[in-house]
Amino acid sequence: MNPAGKPGKTGSLMAVEVALARLLEMAEASPIRERERLPLAQVEGRVLAEDLISTLDLPPWPNSAMDGYALRVADWTGTPLVVSQKIFAGQAPEPLKPGTCARIFTGAPVPAGADCVEMQENAEVQADERVRFTEAMAVGQNIRPQGQETTVGELILSVGTRLGPIEQGLAASLGRAELEVIRKVRVAVLSTGDELIEPGQALGPGQIYNSNRVLLCSWLQRLGYEVIDAGILPDNLETTRARLGELKDVDLILSTGGVSVGEADFLGIALREEGELTLWKLGIKPGKPLTFGHFRGVPVIGLPGNPASTLVTFALLARPYLLRRQGVKAVEPLKFQVPAGFDWPKPGNRREYLRGRLENGRAIIYKNQSSGVLRSAAWADGLVEVLEDRTLIEGDFVGFIPLSDVLG
Amino acid sequence: MNPAGKPGKTGSLMAVEVALARLLEMAEASPIRERERLPLAQVEGRVLAEDLISTLDLPPWPNSAMDGYALRVADWTGTPLVVSQKIFAGQAPEPLKPGTCARIFTGAPVPAGADCVEMQENAEVQADERVRFTEAMAVGQNIRPQGQETTVGELILSVGTRLGPIEQGLAASLGRAELEVIRKVRVAVLSTGDELIEPGQALGPGQIYNSNRVLLCSWLQRLGYEVIDAGILPDNLETTRARLGELKDVDLILSTGGVSVGEADFLGIALREEGELTLWKLGIKPGKPLTFGHFRGVPVIGLPGNPASTLVTFALLARPYLLRRQGVKAVEPLKFQVPAGFDWPKPGNRREYLRGRLENGRAIIYKNQSSGVLRSAAWADGLVEVLEDRTLIEGDFVGFIPLSDVLG
Repeated sequence: MNPAGKPGKTGSLMAVEVALARLLEMAEASPIRERERLPLAQVEGRVLAEDLISTLDLPPWPNSAMDGYALRVADWTGTPLVVSQKIFAGQAPEPLKPGTCARIFTGAPVPAGADCVEMQENAEVQADERVRFTEAMAVGQNIRPQGQETTVGELILSVGTRLGPIEQGLAASLGRAELEVIRKVRVAVLSTGDELIEPGQALGPGQIYNSNRVLLCSWLQRLGYEVIDAGILPDNLETTRARLGELKDVDLILSTGGVSVGEADFLGIALREEGELTLWKLGIKPGKPLTFGHFRGVPVIGLPGNPASTLVTFALLARPYLLRRQGVKAVEPLKFQVPAGFDWPKPGNRREYLRGRLENGRAIIYKNQSSGVLRSAAWADGLVEVLEDRTLIEGDFVGFIPLSDVLG
Repeated sequence: MNPAGKPGKTGSLMAVEVALARLLEMAEASPIRERERLPLAQVEGRVLAEDLISTLDLPPWPNSAMDGYALRVADWTGTPLVVSQKIFAGQAPEPLKPGTCARIFTGAPVPAGADCVEMQENAEVQADERVRFTEAMAVGQNIRPQGQETTVGELILSVGTRLGPIEQGLAASLGRAELEVIRKVRVAVLSTGDELIEPGQALGPGQIYNSNRVLLCSWLQRLGYEVIDAGILPDNLETTRARLGELKDVDLILSTGGVSVGEADFLGIALREEGELTLWKLGIKPGKPLTFGHFRGVPVIGLPGNPASTLVTFALLARPYLLRRQGVKAVEPLKFQVPAGFDWPKPGNRREYLRGRLENGRAIIYKNQSSGVLRSAAWADGLVEVLEDRTLIEGDFVGFIPLSDVLG
């Protein structure tokens, strides 16, 4: 018994980075290019479809970094200066009258003729309201020059940048009220497995609750995608074909569970008949079986059905694939090297992603690393990477991928 | 000139952790307790208002960890066994007929009477369809026992847990179709500063584009909050009072810019007259001035107006405050210790949060750390923490807070 494409226990495993490289290649071969112009407030989670070039200098004019007084340093001879104007942020100042100073507030434009701002703490207002300065002053002091941050024509954000609150704020500071972005990616999520029933129903003999679809639908929405919940595929070839056929407008069909089980694998049969199917056995734990294929031209990724396996393979493989489809360059998660707070005496033949936490600067791991439920992941704040064929003692460095980095 | 409460340059600065502790105390004094029952698919970003206790064992019955054959080890004497039933996942098996084996697939219930599953790779199907086993077998092998992951009555998630895709998936696996959660927090966001205009308009003399409101509105939405965009407050006391008065149903008024500038500070005047106002000078850079107060009983946090300062103070102070209002226990971001990829020759008197990246395992920083725009933050993937009164040479450890961890 050896279902098609599934190597036996002595079969070689595909390294995670090899699988990722292949998936990214396939993503690049079917890029999503349709774009739309959206108000700035609506672009969160989208990918920029244009280079964002600055059309202004920032700051647009020299401005004061402090609350204080603007003056020309050469005018200060020790004799108190008359305050000839008061400049709040948002006001356009008069040129500075020679031999005087201007009261000025943080962010306000420095008047022509002034070359210095002295902070108010170093200024004494006399009884006659003239101002005496108590410290030596230098030309340019406390002035933020025009264009210090950004000048006209500079590239600020490139095509392919994922847009979040920071990028939205940055675009706003350049006066952009709208941006060109890639349209929302449409992902259909389905489960296979006759043992699955929906939460809220009574559990019959042999049944378990479906959790992967909830996990993936919520995750895909966080990533800014349009999610089509395609339900549980029944164990029937005709229906499987019909249900898959309804998903012709999506960019990806994402399934979990069971493609490698030959006998009741109607999804696998449908893909082989009307598309293509590759089964990979990955050197990853939890994880291992991953399916990539097409149904009538629509890409299909089949993740393993154990919840922790679904989590890890989506985070490390499907998420980068989807981001790259949109043209995102930086698709891999942040990975920190931190000391292990545990021993790892037995080397494994697969790369392990343990659900762990950062505690006093060390990576500690959940006691039960079974892939069957998400308890370990809910407890965790990161995936702790232990390389294949490796033992560890406490204090050795391991990779740590924050879950927050892959969830958004 | 020294606006109320603002210490001079020799005044002592409040440490970040002191400010955070005070804010969290204030948050605990005005908890948001109203709860609602929501379908599981809608709880992303919410905070759990009930302890989630398991009402079932997971797995609910012993099940097979492999595709193979279930048998009683004692029945194996070397004589091939008849296959008396075939058990797919989702099926309720018959008790195992003594002296036979059952074909079984991953996830399927192990039949009563069987005490072992042998993987199919170690089984030979004879011409007469009986099965011969080629390796020694042990009781319990490849069986996931009932309740291995979770047993009835166990506490799975506590009150105060933030719910994301993983927690939603976990609740689904326990059969929960709905959860009790804290209602959405309502935050009004406003800007002050006569120099501000909205993106898309033409920039007049002395004006700059408002970016903080876009940043904060988008960020608050990502955090799962209800956002009221209260616009730019005009420089007029009557209007300021009226506009603040309209916000009586919010949980927090979040303002940026200008509360510490005395003369045109109508927000400050309104708070002093009809509430309360505390100005803190924080030992944080970018940042420093932070306002906490009330207007007719509604809490007000005033963040500094420079975009990078708004970002850092929201991430480190306002975000934890808001989470704690909802009863979240773990409110501080992840912080990794990583080697600095830069020198820091001049000690500062404030704790610096430099916008940095992880590159080859080291923290590198953006060349221009000005707080005036968000370019550094858009380039960055973390905040690099350099403690006050400290110098660094390359390779010394610094704190690194992933932006992804505070943005979600």
